Amino acid sequence: MSKTNLDLVNDCDSFPYYQVDPDLYAASISTYYELRVQGHDYGLGYVLPSVAEVFRGVPNFSLDDDDRILTLTAGENVEERSQLIEHTLLALKQIGHFKVLEKWRNELYAVYGRNKELLFNVERSASPLLGVVTYGVHLTAYTKTEDGELKIWIPRRARTKQTYGGLLDNAVAGGIASGETPFESLVRECGEEASLPEDLVRSTVKPAGTVTYFYIRDERAGGESKLLQPECQYVYDIELPEDVIPKPGDDEVEEFYLWTIEEVKEAMAKGEFKPNCALVMLEFFVRHGIITCDKEKDYIEIVSRLHRRLEFPTL
Amino acid sequence: MSKTNLDLVNDCDSFPYYQVDPDLYAASISTYYELRVQGHDYGLGYVLPSVAEVFRGVPNFSLDDDDRILTLTAGENVEERSQLIEHTLLALKQIGHFKVLEKWRNELYAVYGRNKELLFNVERSASPLLGVVTYGVHLTAYTKTEDGELKIWIPRRARTKQTYGGLLDNAVAGGIASGETPFESLVRECGEEASLPEDLVRSTVKPAGTVTYFYIRDERAGGESKLLQPECQYVYDIELPEDVIPKPGDDEVEEFYLWTIEEVKEAMAKGEFKPNCALVMLEFFVRHGIITCDKEKDYIEIVSRLHRRLEFPTL
Repeated sequence: MSKTNLDLVNDCDSFPYYQVDPDLYAASISTYYELRVQGHDYGLGYVLPSVAEVFRGVPNFSLDDDDRILTLTAGENVEERSQLIEHTLLALKQIGHFKVLEKWRNELYAVYGRNKELLFNVERSASPLLGVVTYGVHLTAYTKTEDGELKIWIPRRARTKQTYGGLLDNAVAGGIASGETPFESLVRECGEEASLPEDLVRSTVKPAGTVTYFYIRDERAGGESKLLQPECQYVYDIELPEDVIPKPGDDEVEEFYLWTIEEVKEAMAKGEFKPNCALVMLEFFVRHGIITCDKEKDYIEIVSRLHRRLEFPTL
Repeated sequence: MSKTNLDLVNDCDSFPYYQVDPDLYAASISTYYELRVQGHDYGLGYVLPSVAEVFRGVPNFSLDDDDRILTLTAGENVEERSQLIEHTLLALKQIGHFKVLEKWRNELYAVYGRNKELLFNVERSASPLLGVVTYGVHLTAYTKTEDGELKIWIPRRARTKQTYGGLLDNAVAGGIASGETPFESLVRECGEEASLPEDLVRSTVKPAGTVTYFYIRDERAGGESKLLQPECQYVYDIELPEDVIPKPGDDEVEEFYLWTIEEVKEAMAKGEFKPNCALVMLEFFVRHGIITCDKEKDYIEIVSRLHRRLEFPTL
């Protein structure tokens, strides 16, 4: 069955909206624990009850079942908080309690407070357990043929990849490590994932905004299902000369296709894209006037939902 | 005092967000009446209590003070509902109760239900009394000089204009009348407001998404303050050849300036733009990579808030 563009949005931005259905929203929220750090009386993420339960009695964490808050109760600064959290997560990894921790990556993600201050860093694979906002970069690479047709470079993820194996992706996409700027992250990933010349990337890539959404993970993400993942992707475009061909630079990508817009749309409708990459394509199509309000009946809703305002502080 | 880009967003998208401050949001909402039409158990807009009070005892309207709902209790179809509402509004105009109705324009705006069906049409000047979502088109016209510099055409509103007189605007902007498509509305306004050749507009204008926000009107909008105005603007870009000069086609525009990006930014920081036009400029700057996350600390928040998901059904 063919997916509409709104179906694609629903697949990725799957957390309810208060302003659309307050009752559903309240019912969802009421089951979660809010993650906090001491001295900051606001949430940084939503934690599933099954996850929060594991923190009960763990040193330096407290669980408030009435207000449903999981608080890191110690740590005066970024280093201390980060160490306490890593210590606990490593112990949980050793016990083998969470499947997501089996893919420990030794990459740190940053978690920010309301004043955009760094509060702590957390191992990437653990971020969906805590439900905190994560950041990434996504690049759409396209070329214009001699007769002016816009074609898009689309990679297929290696079928052996544990997450979303075999699905279609954006030309370049990756998480932003703590301390790295979006642009430097993008330049690095352009080399690693698509073998694009660094000079070309630095001189011609164009930042074009963000795509933000609140994803509820399913089995394709690997590890536990239903984990909460609010995300912000910085989006970039690059127009490649016809003779620059992206090539997989590591074993994460199987091959690159150069597709017409119709081919990309068909693959999206068949659900062949990784969910958040379909959103990045939709945003590209809106921004370039390829999806328009005359043809897309859900245009206004789609444009808003590609730019969700998240419940938690962002950078 | 110089305005930041986030100040400009706050000036226009001024209604609170539940996900950021649920208490403030609940406190705001609790003072308003929700506008409904019979047979549709959801809100179409927020009405100030001072406005709702005027509908007390008016035929075909009921006021529920417990649940704070103002309902049109009659009308089986679009025509009937529209006529009943117009009849009431004309009577209120005659009494001279609302200042906004003194600027009766004989233009109808469309109000949609959850299935995107037209529920009724309402006189433009009355739409902020009912707090319903309104729709418009905004065009940014720019040109590239010989040395590749991007310059933007900025009109100044006539100082005699009752709303936002003397402030800066987007090249073309206007409300979409019920029954009109965004594109046809834009083509019409391009002729009326900027004397742009219709062929050029039809062949080169590019749709680029929407800007949505929830505005609380102030005295500059004319008429009563604090009226609630959720809006959706379809945004378009046009690159004009250097020899095409926009010219005021009516008495609403005083003159057009061709400004560098720096000049536009300075005028924005000085608060010289009509509030929603500043948002359209911000969205243009984000989309064209002129405002980037390296330089703009509130980038993520700004991009989200330029695309607010509204509380009420939209087309």
